[in-house]
Amino acid sequence: MKRQAFFISDGTGITAETLGHSLLTQFESIEFEQTTLPYIDTNEKALEIVRKLNKITEHSGVMPIVFDTIVNQSIRDIISKAQVFKVDIFSTFLAPLEKELQIHSSYTVGKSHAGGDNEGYKARIDAVNFALDNDDGSKIKHFDQADIILVGVSRSGKTPTCLYMALQFGIKAANYPLTEEDLGEMMLPDVLKPFKKKLFGLTIDPERLAAIRNERKSNSRYASINQCHYEVEEVEFLYQQESISYLSTTDLSVEEISTRIMLEADLKRLA
Amino acid sequence: MKRQAFFISDGTGITAETLGHSLLTQFESIEFEQTTLPYIDTNEKALEIVRKLNKITEHSGVMPIVFDTIVNQSIRDIISKAQVFKVDIFSTFLAPLEKELQIHSSYTVGKSHAGGDNEGYKARIDAVNFALDNDDGSKIKHFDQADIILVGVSRSGKTPTCLYMALQFGIKAANYPLTEEDLGEMMLPDVLKPFKKKLFGLTIDPERLAAIRNERKSNSRYASINQCHYEVEEVEFLYQQESISYLSTTDLSVEEISTRIMLEADLKRLA
Repeated sequence: MKRQAFFISDGTGITAETLGHSLLTQFESIEFEQTTLPYIDTNEKALEIVRKLNKITEHSGVMPIVFDTIVNQSIRDIISKAQVFKVDIFSTFLAPLEKELQIHSSYTVGKSHAGGDNEGYKARIDAVNFALDNDDGSKIKHFDQADIILVGVSRSGKTPTCLYMALQFGIKAANYPLTEEDLGEMMLPDVLKPFKKKLFGLTIDPERLAAIRNERKSNSRYASINQCHYEVEEVEFLYQQESISYLSTTDLSVEEISTRIMLEADLKRLA
Repeated sequence: MKRQAFFISDGTGITAETLGHSLLTQFESIEFEQTTLPYIDTNEKALEIVRKLNKITEHSGVMPIVFDTIVNQSIRDIISKAQVFKVDIFSTFLAPLEKELQIHSSYTVGKSHAGGDNEGYKARIDAVNFALDNDDGSKIKHFDQADIILVGVSRSGKTPTCLYMALQFGIKAANYPLTEEDLGEMMLPDVLKPFKKKLFGLTIDPERLAAIRNERKSNSRYASINQCHYEVEEVEFLYQQESISYLSTTDLSVEEISTRIMLEADLKRLA
């Protein structure tokens, strides 16, 4: 039987979910059923949650684990009465931080998350639009305005990475697919030459690439293992020849790819 | 003078950053200089960080605040010697969780984050591709495969929201812009009618909309305040007439918009 875990917040629940998930991942041998309950921002909603949680404890005899980042005191009081194993994220850390900073924290509903500010919002939306406008070599090329330009063979992970960097970090990331023609030349396409310092290469295991391409165009030359082997070999050769930093996306999540690129290219995150 | 804060991890640093940022946001009157240091995964890197942190303490006389999610014990030991105010996220919560779960946690490097698994990765990438293929009404319309279809006037926030839901939750979100012609008809476009249950509307304050549109096409009829007022009024009327759930994106971050839609449309997040 899976152990129940809940991430409860009066905001988006992203902090509770991110931390809770990270902590539970450390217990590999236990299977957790994970549920996020965002916007628990009224006493009525809180009371309903408490009833639901208590029912689980009564029926299964095992207490659900609850990670919460609720800031509203009256809602905290209600949730604290549930028969659960509670990990109270904010109260655990805010007390020592208040002492160190010698100031009281503002338990203001809705103030608990990043990204709500207009400046950050605008920068991210602008970055998303930039990524979409400069996705794939065929689109508008404002490479001069790019913070970074990802290059790589088709389906090596460029687009999701650009979008993640835009949404998460407000980074303007363009991308340019290196085609068989480009690779045959054994040199950078002319359009990329002026921006060599902004280039970052992606590569991928050929077998994995073939599997991904087969989902889009099955049994095509494009998706064949030979073609994938050839393109990956050529593109890695090109990166080395041109001294372009690159990484393999094969075993990494989009978050990991993006974070590693940010680090290696020394890009500054949106505060 | 800004107080220095660091989010240190041997992984992506997203957990430390998300939690640390949420906690610091509770201290509104203090300005923090926030720095994320991901992939601190060797003793050498850790020693360099300690030197950097100690230098700040010596020069400014104020200890930096450090939030960390390092799992490697030898790296933890090194970081723990820095003269900082340290918020040790994992050790604080893992000990009580181990007691409750009656099992030891695996302090395995790189196991601390969600999304690294292949299944989740694939679902997210598929969802991103789906969002891109079904963005804007002019593209391929696989509305039958969509988990949700966002509708709204141009520049009300549909595309970034679809992409965030795809990347964060693995949700297949399509979008369809309601144009002046659609709104003039006072009824749903034919292409949307079979999918009425999947529709979710976005709206936005007309002044905000005019400002956003002016950045794209300044001084156009499209960006005029009159036009924005007209479109927003009509689109809200349409939502009400057709009983389509909707929300205003004006004061919300992309995370907030996405999370609220997930909740109201009862969509299940990727585990």
